[in-house]
Amino acid sequence: MLCRWAAGRAMRHCRFSLPGVTSMVHAGAMSGSGNLMDFLDEPFPDVGTYEDFHTIDWLREKSRDTDRHRKITSKSKESIWEFIKSLLDAWSGWVVMLLIGLLAGTLAGVIDLAVDWMTDLKEGVCLSAFWYSHEQCCWTSNETTFEDRDKCPLWQKWSELLVNQSEGASAYILNYLMYILWALLFAFLAVSLVRVFAPYACGSGIPEIKTILSGFIIRGYLGKWTLLIKTVTLVLVVSSGLSLGKEGPLVHVACCCGNFFSSLFSKYSKNEGKRREVLSAAAAAGVSVAFGAPIGGVLFSLEEVSYYFPLKTLWRSFFAALVAAFTLRSINPFGNSRLVLFYVEYHTPWYMAELFPFILLGVFGGLWGTLFIRGNIAWCRRRKTTKLGKYPVLEVIVVTAVTAIIAYPNPYTRRSTSELISELFNDCGALESSQLCDYINDPNMTRPVDDIPDRPAGVGVYTAMWQLALALVFKIVITIFTFGMKIPSGLFIPSMAVGAMAGRMVGIGVEQLAYHHHDWIVFRNWCRPGADCVTPGLYAMVGAAACLGGVTRMTVSLVVIMFELTGGLEYIVPLMAAAVTSKWVADAFGKEGIYEAHIHLNGYPFLDVKDEFTHRTLATDVMRPRRGEPPLSVLTQDSMTVEDVETLIKETDYNGFPVVVSRDSERLIGFAQRRELILAIKNARQRQEGIVSNSIMYFTEEPPELPANSPHPLKLRRVLNLSPFTVTDHTPMETVVDIFRKLGLRQCLVTRSGRLLGIITKKDVLRHMAQMANQDPESIMFN
Amino acid sequence: MLCRWAAGRAMRHCRFSLPGVTSMVHAGAMSGSGNLMDFLDEPFPDVGTYEDFHTIDWLREKSRDTDRHRKITSKSKESIWEFIKSLLDAWSGWVVMLLIGLLAGTLAGVIDLAVDWMTDLKEGVCLSAFWYSHEQCCWTSNETTFEDRDKCPLWQKWSELLVNQSEGASAYILNYLMYILWALLFAFLAVSLVRVFAPYACGSGIPEIKTILSGFIIRGYLGKWTLLIKTVTLVLVVSSGLSLGKEGPLVHVACCCGNFFSSLFSKYSKNEGKRREVLSAAAAAGVSVAFGAPIGGVLFSLEEVSYYFPLKTLWRSFFAALVAAFTLRSINPFGNSRLVLFYVEYHTPWYMAELFPFILLGVFGGLWGTLFIRGNIAWCRRRKTTKLGKYPVLEVIVVTAVTAIIAYPNPYTRRSTSELISELFNDCGALESSQLCDYINDPNMTRPVDDIPDRPAGVGVYTAMWQLALALVFKIVITIFTFGMKIPSGLFIPSMAVGAMAGRMVGIGVEQLAYHHHDWIVFRNWCRPGADCVTPGLYAMVGAAACLGGVTRMTVSLVVIMFELTGGLEYIVPLMAAAVTSKWVADAFGKEGIYEAHIHLNGYPFLDVKDEFTHRTLATDVMRPRRGEPPLSVLTQDSMTVEDVETLIKETDYNGFPVVVSRDSERLIGFAQRRELILAIKNARQRQEGIVSNSIMYFTEEPPELPANSPHPLKLRRVLNLSPFTVTDHTPMETVVDIFRKLGLRQCLVTRSGRLLGIITKKDVLRHMAQMANQDPESIMFN
Repeated sequence: MLCRWAAGRAMRHCRFSLPGVTSMVHAGAMSGSGNLMDFLDEPFPDVGTYEDFHTIDWLREKSRDTDRHRKITSKSKESIWEFIKSLLDAWSGWVVMLLIGLLAGTLAGVIDLAVDWMTDLKEGVCLSAFWYSHEQCCWTSNETTFEDRDKCPLWQKWSELLVNQSEGASAYILNYLMYILWALLFAFLAVSLVRVFAPYACGSGIPEIKTILSGFIIRGYLGKWTLLIKTVTLVLVVSSGLSLGKEGPLVHVACCCGNFFSSLFSKYSKNEGKRREVLSAAAAAGVSVAFGAPIGGVLFSLEEVSYYFPLKTLWRSFFAALVAAFTLRSINPFGNSRLVLFYVEYHTPWYMAELFPFILLGVFGGLWGTLFIRGNIAWCRRRKTTKLGKYPVLEVIVVTAVTAIIAYPNPYTRRSTSELISELFNDCGALESSQLCDYINDPNMTRPVDDIPDRPAGVGVYTAMWQLALALVFKIVITIFTFGMKIPSGLFIPSMAVGAMAGRMVGIGVEQLAYHHHDWIVFRNWCRPGADCVTPGLYAMVGAAACLGGVTRMTVSLVVIMFELTGGLEYIVPLMAAAVTSKWVADAFGKEGIYEAHIHLNGYPFLDVKDEFTHRTLATDVMRPRRGEPPLSVLTQDSMTVEDVETLIKETDYNGFPVVVSRDSERLIGFAQRRELILAIKNARQRQEGIVSNSIMYFTEEPPELPANSPHPLKLRRVLNLSPFTVTDHTPMETVVDIFRKLGLRQCLVTRSGRLLGIITKKDVLRHMAQMANQDPESIMFN
Repeated sequence: MLCRWAAGRAMRHCRFSLPGVTSMVHAGAMSGSGNLMDFLDEPFPDVGTYEDFHTIDWLREKSRDTDRHRKITSKSKESIWEFIKSLLDAWSGWVVMLLIGLLAGTLAGVIDLAVDWMTDLKEGVCLSAFWYSHEQCCWTSNETTFEDRDKCPLWQKWSELLVNQSEGASAYILNYLMYILWALLFAFLAVSLVRVFAPYACGSGIPEIKTILSGFIIRGYLGKWTLLIKTVTLVLVVSSGLSLGKEGPLVHVACCCGNFFSSLFSKYSKNEGKRREVLSAAAAAGVSVAFGAPIGGVLFSLEEVSYYFPLKTLWRSFFAALVAAFTLRSINPFGNSRLVLFYVEYHTPWYMAELFPFILLGVFGGLWGTLFIRGNIAWCRRRKTTKLGKYPVLEVIVVTAVTAIIAYPNPYTRRSTSELISELFNDCGALESSQLCDYINDPNMTRPVDDIPDRPAGVGVYTAMWQLALALVFKIVITIFTFGMKIPSGLFIPSMAVGAMAGRMVGIGVEQLAYHHHDWIVFRNWCRPGADCVTPGLYAMVGAAACLGGVTRMTVSLVVIMFELTGGLEYIVPLMAAAVTSKWVADAFGKEGIYEAHIHLNGYPFLDVKDEFTHRTLATDVMRPRRGEPPLSVLTQDSMTVEDVETLIKETDYNGFPVVVSRDSERLIGFAQRRELILAIKNARQRQEGIVSNSIMYFTEEPPELPANSPHPLKLRRVLNLSPFTVTDHTPMETVVDIFRKLGLRQCLVTRSGRLLGIITKKDVLRHMAQMANQDPESIMFN
């Protein structure tokens, strides 16, 4: 979510954004009318820009791009050089995608390597080269057997290095302290960097990216500083052992890359609509590198993040996602030349009867989603409204300290969360040394490695169960407080960890039940003695999918990401059953996913495509002015003086004014933007002679007939949008909402039998929707 | 494409569709104004239906569904029974998906089994049970070695059965004749069945489904008869050995299933918009079973077939596609419990240098696509315009005879096309008995089976190359003539076969080049002697993707389908390189894919989402009436008599009339549909007393003030759409096109300063677009 500092900045900005304070000049490129205007001058600087924290007009952006395209196409016939330039322009989309893929993949690889090293740094250091992680350090060591590799002499725990003790209580305490110290150091560094250099680098970024992609301007949110600081601090916070993931922030990082590269090409940098196409693709690349799942990434971008997703974008997103995935693979941070984060391979199919525990896991995921969203939103609201929000550094330090203190004693919380998930997903092979695989083996077993029958659980498994249960409770609680602090934080990994722990416990339970009760009617058909019937790792995976689904309400993309992790269509049915159940359970308690909830909390003007508007209201109920309010401020086409208009602009704060034939007939002829009016008048007063306060302003083609001694009139037709969008007062609001959504309008005028009645802005629509849903309409803050 | 008979029927229908001839009654449910009307009577029968070969109004359908939903929600609070009914209503979407998946999967399985059997029937018969295919027959035989299984005694060729000869010239000729006879019989049966029972069952169906999904009515196109006949004839034509596939028709079959099941639930049967959501999902299920690729199917539906694809549909499509895939797998028609049609597994990676031949294959695919589309469209146009179209049965017989005569002698064309593709895709293992794998083995080889180094080609490979080259030329030519005949015919499989043959030949070429010239600079780095560097099967797959891409212009869905076939992300890069190249090459010669070309040929009103409109025209250039034409036919709100209106209706054939305040002011108050006007007047004349030809008709709330002795006036407000869509005359056409596309309008009124100027219909937009693209605007036939 947007950090408080940033939000504060935004509010200030909004409150004080007086005309003329910010650069606010653009001319003649309103929705579609650009080609009709009589340009007096060359275009002013900052053509087609928007104010910060304002909504863009999609139709107008599209129209401007078509104009640009038309110009290039017609020029391309003139000379070979222009033709080459037009080809370059056509190719620039692909070039941008390639660059995004390369940079996002590289950054993801670097982050993975750095996190690896710094996570291990909390426990010890490599003597041969301090920049080696534990695994790299011992890889080069001479101990070649599998068990000894973990204890190679080159890798020294802090206690060994500092007091030369590797066992015993004092060594343990020393290591414990070092662990906490490093965690605190990393967290402090991260929060300070974010605070000082890039306040927008905090949070997961997905709510804001959703809002930006829906057509909103948040300047600097995808800037170069944000990119740099978010990358660095992401490494720090993940290494600090806090209960957060790097997946959401990676999407933000990839979008920053997208924004950076799109600023290199005028096609994208000068058009907010086209820029958003690039950002959609960048989001896909981000998920692609986060999980190593390019198809899932594209679907995630389509389903969850993007707003307008033309088919051309689909193809390019796919390209960017693939390039990113292959770049990451060639960096090979996991050292196994696998693309995916959690590579698993199961050897047994699943059985119908197992659907019951899978659906139970789905219910658990839905409940967890509800609990997390409610808890987290309540806590974030408290942070926004109470003193708590004033001490972000202290908050991070305290949460880090609590996390480190509680996490260290438990082996399942001490290690990094993604390692934990990986271990929980894995099937127990014969050589597995993990405590979770401490089964009692039949010494006479001669089966091949990948077909081990169900075995009774050993002591290790029972210990692991206890530790997992404690870790689960701890994760659930701490994640609610962690997500939303002023550091980069994603929640994919913590959610998956919660689900994986619950799932693994259920899985082991079912496995032991099946082993000890082969004769029960539910097991009799598919689980004979000596068969390998239950795969606890699969339960962990199903649980992870359920919990992730409960929190984010992803559907297809979730299943496809999980499918890409396992690579087998076999397990899609369990995953789907759990995902559907979890979504239904969570939806029963509240329709909003965590991202929508945070968008809502921050008051962004986000018109969700998924919400359905089902009320019976009409345009006339929503439009301004309401009954009893003063009439709509309009301009007349040829009877107001410059002074009249200046007074009107000064006295109101509307973004634009409808232009009518006369106040009596109220017949609409167009719409003039406030920014453009101000600029045009200022310009005319400076440059055009004879323009005084008494000059008549006219929007028609021909000047009106004036008395002989009246001052020179001012023609303003070029700032007039001749094709404003209108609906009649009887139009049902569901149609109006649909039009706003599909066409991406900023405002829409309301008429009755050709007479202008009022205006509806996007903010009005959102406030009306909030009111209909019994929410506070004032929560929508931006226009 | 639509068969000629059907098209003829359509044309007749259009020409004679006088008011009142067809059932044309629906009332009060126009876009959004339904809730405002003063219903005099209960709704008339056929509420909300459309005429055949007409365009639907998406906004209105959506509005009607919201009304329905609102009604159910408010009722559900009244009693438990209503609550259960509302739950059932909410669930019906999932139930429909489940049913579609089950039926589509079952039908696909049955088709596969029947095709297997009937294809083999052309060559011989099983003695133990005549309904066994060759493989099933010999499966139960006692010969257990792999080579002998093909020659099991229970399976008898026709020559063996009839004259007891298995070798020799006369046996060959007899088998040849039987092959041709069976093929002719199958083809004759198929074309006769199609002709007599279901003319719509011909073609691939995808162009029509695209048109239907974009909001067009073709009654009976997805009917039960079409479903039945298409399923049966599909088996016949595929078995007859014609150069066609079953993939496109399977999409049609699945959509028929979708239509059938949606007719069981009033939520879908009574709303053309909702019905199309179901059909989109059914299309996904169709591709899912055609290739065993559920994710690819969903993306195909999204990218290629669907028009409006809300996110809810994505999730449901995925569900339907999965259910269908699993149903197919449990029927297990391929006998290997594999889901996919062409299962392949390669053991070697690809190398950078191989990208060059892959891109060459892409160029070939693009050229093939262009050649095929041009040739096929030219031939189909000739069929439409010359005598040729009058002898569809003869045409099928002749093409079948030619195909059978030429195909039999060549082993690569004699077998079924999907077997051919499967063989071409496969890597040569050590045990492979295929001629294509007749390499000269090194007798000292001790390597494992899946790591065979490159070997010199043997005689068999060279023979196979020649035969493949001949088969390639034959396939290219015959497919152009086959696609579009009056039988079900898909072109996925023939296109893939063309590409696979070309690819395999290139692959073998590169392999032999690499083997014999290890020292060339291009091979030196990655292909040392004794290494397995080139996989000819991969080239076949890349070629298949390129050719399919060239013909259909699929992008993401193509790559994902291919990816699901191999299951390895490794090969996505070659596939993508070929798909991108092929699309670019083909696009350079013409933007239309085969489906769009057929839509165009048939004159359907299809507003492609992918086309970009980049011309500088304005709404005023497109609207009717044009300059010099008589003024727009309008109704006034309270001054026309019933007779005036009846005359107007009789003299014009417009679909509706704008209603204005008065002819002088021309201020728009609404829009009245022709059908509804006719019905309302008829109804009033029958039921309401005092309504005569002289009665004044009024659309206002209150009756106008009339002289004392005037007849009783007729109130028609309830047929008035109070929220017609308007744009100003200065609106650029690119915006108008965008609005038509995104909102799914039928017509749009044009105003200037509140005065009505004219009207733009979807047909006008399409004709204008055709004109701008230098095409014949009259080719758009339907409204």
